[in-house]
Amino acid sequence: MSGLILALDVIDKKRALKIVEETKASLDYVKVGYPLILSTGINIMEKISELMPVIADLKVADIPDINELICRETFRNGAKGIICHGFTGRDSLKACIDVSREFDGDIYVVADMSHPGASAFFPDISVKICDIAMELGAEGIVSPANRPERLRKIKKRIKKLKLLSPGIGVQGGSIRDAIFAGADYLIIGRSIYMDKNPKTAAERIKKAIEEADDEEFPDR
Amino acid sequence: MSGLILALDVIDKKRALKIVEETKASLDYVKVGYPLILSTGINIMEKISELMPVIADLKVADIPDINELICRETFRNGAKGIICHGFTGRDSLKACIDVSREFDGDIYVVADMSHPGASAFFPDISVKICDIAMELGAEGIVSPANRPERLRKIKKRIKKLKLLSPGIGVQGGSIRDAIFAGADYLIIGRSIYMDKNPKTAAERIKKAIEEADDEEFPDR
Repeated sequence: MSGLILALDVIDKKRALKIVEETKASLDYVKVGYPLILSTGINIMEKISELMPVIADLKVADIPDINELICRETFRNGAKGIICHGFTGRDSLKACIDVSREFDGDIYVVADMSHPGASAFFPDISVKICDIAMELGAEGIVSPANRPERLRKIKKRIKKLKLLSPGIGVQGGSIRDAIFAGADYLIIGRSIYMDKNPKTAAERIKKAIEEADDEEFPDR
Repeated sequence: MSGLILALDVIDKKRALKIVEETKASLDYVKVGYPLILSTGINIMEKISELMPVIADLKVADIPDINELICRETFRNGAKGIICHGFTGRDSLKACIDVSREFDGDIYVVADMSHPGASAFFPDISVKICDIAMELGAEGIVSPANRPERLRKIKKRIKKLKLLSPGIGVQGGSIRDAIFAGADYLIIGRSIYMDKNPKTAAERIKKAIEEADDEEFPDR
């Protein structure tokens, strides 16, 4: 059964908390990023985590010393998981994973991205990033559903690691693309929080995920 | 004449402001990153910018929409410049540079990094990142002095773009390496803020930069 992660890319605190309150029955995690954290302060994660476990999508991409400080501060403030980049290499990613163990937290590693520019450098290194992530013991991999052929390749490579997949809806990927490729969690933002009624939007998406999960895909 | 940028990688607000106050006569910019911003709040940049122009070293590395939000929030809060990644591709970087124009701010693009893991993926793409940065009109490039041969190659490529160079001191590069390779600004952190007397440490480094600048290097 694939799960649903809300990408909460709003920058107003009240609105953020209201959306989580309304949609939480359909969600598995809430993903927050720097726009919300910088606008409202890092303690927003504590507030949200009272309602729903939080994944901090920080795309951490610095030298090991700085990655360690960023991850420690983020786990301390209520995050259950953190999304980090892997293209900075093994030692940078290891610094994140070492800190995650102190907090019983999870590190998810970006292996590909949903925007057009990601095609410049990611295709050549996605598989190597996955290998480093597996070797170091990351919890999962992030790769978008709007590049389903690359997503399937990544899923085959990472085996039991969790696959988190954004790029659905506004960015062009479909729920079926993601589930067909083997995504464990679908990351969906604007299709929920931009809807006039986020609650029913989340319910509708949750139902579509369940239906796609029930379909029989010949390749799976 | 090469300049000096203090990498202010401390996480205590009072200590951060005290170090800037003490060292500012030797500095051109103060570079702050997420550890300090997350610990103290984004308004720390306003405070520091009353003393010295701030470069926010956020290693911005997300999709264009999110990069735009991050950069806007950062310039709004007093940053003069922002360090962004280029490996996320042209559109992600363009989103940062477009926002910088609204604020008359500067974008610096990471072309290489100082830690061992950076050798996994950066050497193959550094030059392409520089080309994208030049084409889009970035203010400068960040590349470390502890890889002087790669630094020289980058300097030749970027011509008039500013070259900012970390990786000096604790990370193994020397002031002469950086200046010999053509760095316009040296980014130095621990050798200053870890010193018992940051003020005299900064003065000593400033003097060493001036002396190296006065040497005649056959290649320059």
